[in-house]
Amino acid sequence: MTLECGGNGRSEFDPTAKGNQWTIGAVHCASWTGVRLRDILNDVGLKNDAVYIGYHGIDKHISMDPNKEPISRGFPISKALQDETLIAFDMNGKPLPRVHGFPLRLVAGGWPASASGKWINRLSIRNKIHDGAKMTGTAYRVPCKPVAPGVKVSDDDMCIIESMPVKSIITYPKTGAIIKKGQLLKIRGHAWAGELEVSKVAFSIDFGATWKLCHLETPINRLAWQHFSTTIKFPRIGYYEIWAKASDSENNSQPMIVPGWNPKGYLNNACHRIAIKVK
Amino acid sequence: MTLECGGNGRSEFDPTAKGNQWTIGAVHCASWTGVRLRDILNDVGLKNDAVYIGYHGIDKHISMDPNKEPISRGFPISKALQDETLIAFDMNGKPLPRVHGFPLRLVAGGWPASASGKWINRLSIRNKIHDGAKMTGTAYRVPCKPVAPGVKVSDDDMCIIESMPVKSIITYPKTGAIIKKGQLLKIRGHAWAGELEVSKVAFSIDFGATWKLCHLETPINRLAWQHFSTTIKFPRIGYYEIWAKASDSENNSQPMIVPGWNPKGYLNNACHRIAIKVK
Repeated sequence: MTLECGGNGRSEFDPTAKGNQWTIGAVHCASWTGVRLRDILNDVGLKNDAVYIGYHGIDKHISMDPNKEPISRGFPISKALQDETLIAFDMNGKPLPRVHGFPLRLVAGGWPASASGKWINRLSIRNKIHDGAKMTGTAYRVPCKPVAPGVKVSDDDMCIIESMPVKSIITYPKTGAIIKKGQLLKIRGHAWAGELEVSKVAFSIDFGATWKLCHLETPINRLAWQHFSTTIKFPRIGYYEIWAKASDSENNSQPMIVPGWNPKGYLNNACHRIAIKVK
Repeated sequence: MTLECGGNGRSEFDPTAKGNQWTIGAVHCASWTGVRLRDILNDVGLKNDAVYIGYHGIDKHISMDPNKEPISRGFPISKALQDETLIAFDMNGKPLPRVHGFPLRLVAGGWPASASGKWINRLSIRNKIHDGAKMTGTAYRVPCKPVAPGVKVSDDDMCIIESMPVKSIITYPKTGAIIKKGQLLKIRGHAWAGELEVSKVAFSIDFGATWKLCHLETPINRLAWQHFSTTIKFPRIGYYEIWAKASDSENNSQPMIVPGWNPKGYLNNACHRIAIKVK
């Protein structure tokens, strides 16, 4: 299933957003094996006032100060009870690599990957929204209502990011590719839409004046990314940009430009574009 | 009918384009009265080798040097023979104001306004593409094939701009408007598509994730701009951008971003956007 890893591409925001810029973003889709978190919660028994899960891991704070809590995020009980929410021990059929959370990690597909805690050794069942490190303030939050670029937003007006917006990436060819005149170019990539399904992917070679549909595969299961591909014939020699635009099952499309500005630079799901030359 | 006046918005090009930046562009639509150029050409008689019209005016070169030719552009015979191509003497029912070309001017709607020469006192019928001032080199030309931003293009590879691409502008409200919570906002504007008709205008208040159709009026006659309007209800308080996107009868839409870069910064038909606040 698809995890939005760490960043969604801060570098295009104006005013700029601090933090790892992630260029156009990062995404990850693997096959996970584990125990359904729901089964564990049912076995333990949930009290009526349970609203949120918080995770705790064996990693240290980035400063290595033992008195500081490392990232400790989580998600609502409703997400915890979904079929696909796991405590995973295998990734792609093998024990989790250390960098991916050995021996155990959460997998909460379709949400920011920071919800899928690594190296976990304890879960809290909370009667309020979990308030661990990186859950409060502005971390992984966007303004609850749309704000003008550069505006100062109080912590009270920031809302936690849950399911991620529709997005796609062209994985072949790389920008800079050179095509011979008359040659057909097969492009391919992935598209995902948080907890929704991708309904279509279109491409443009004229900066968005016209769009044509790509071939889109169904996801291997819920929350997995979807493959798309198409074959492009260029009308003449010259410089072209190929833009990909995915839409989700609720008819939201990727915008061509950075969507709503937010202080931390999250949720940039603008279309991916590559540049190629036909010679 | 619609003339694209002078500039189409150079300011968004990167690398930058020299000349009057025209911010987002300029457009003009008036009622013209005159004599069909076709009637005059038929009266005079066209030779078989006639391919182009060139105009000459009584204005001086911008340097006031009498040895330098002021702008002397034109258009192909096929454009000269169109119903709407005029030698005009009235504008909006009154003699042409001096700034608009008194006593006589050409009107070649849907093309760059520089084709519609002012203060004319002579026409050339040419057996080749007219080569007056601002007809050659890079003036009013774009690369014949698409080029990478910043590339040097030789004069031989530049092609004359003819019919202008589809574009629209929101004329009400102005950016910066403040709307009360719950208030419906009626927006209005104009759309045009060179020698084509505008087939639809859509708007977005979520940076292009979703689009809805505006009401679009038919043009008062061929080559006139078309009025659009719609009423918008905003879902909550906050900052919004309203984007307008027109499409033409050949299914070309405005892109959300600057289309193909070109050395002189012509043909930027990116969507117009305004910013408003709901309080």
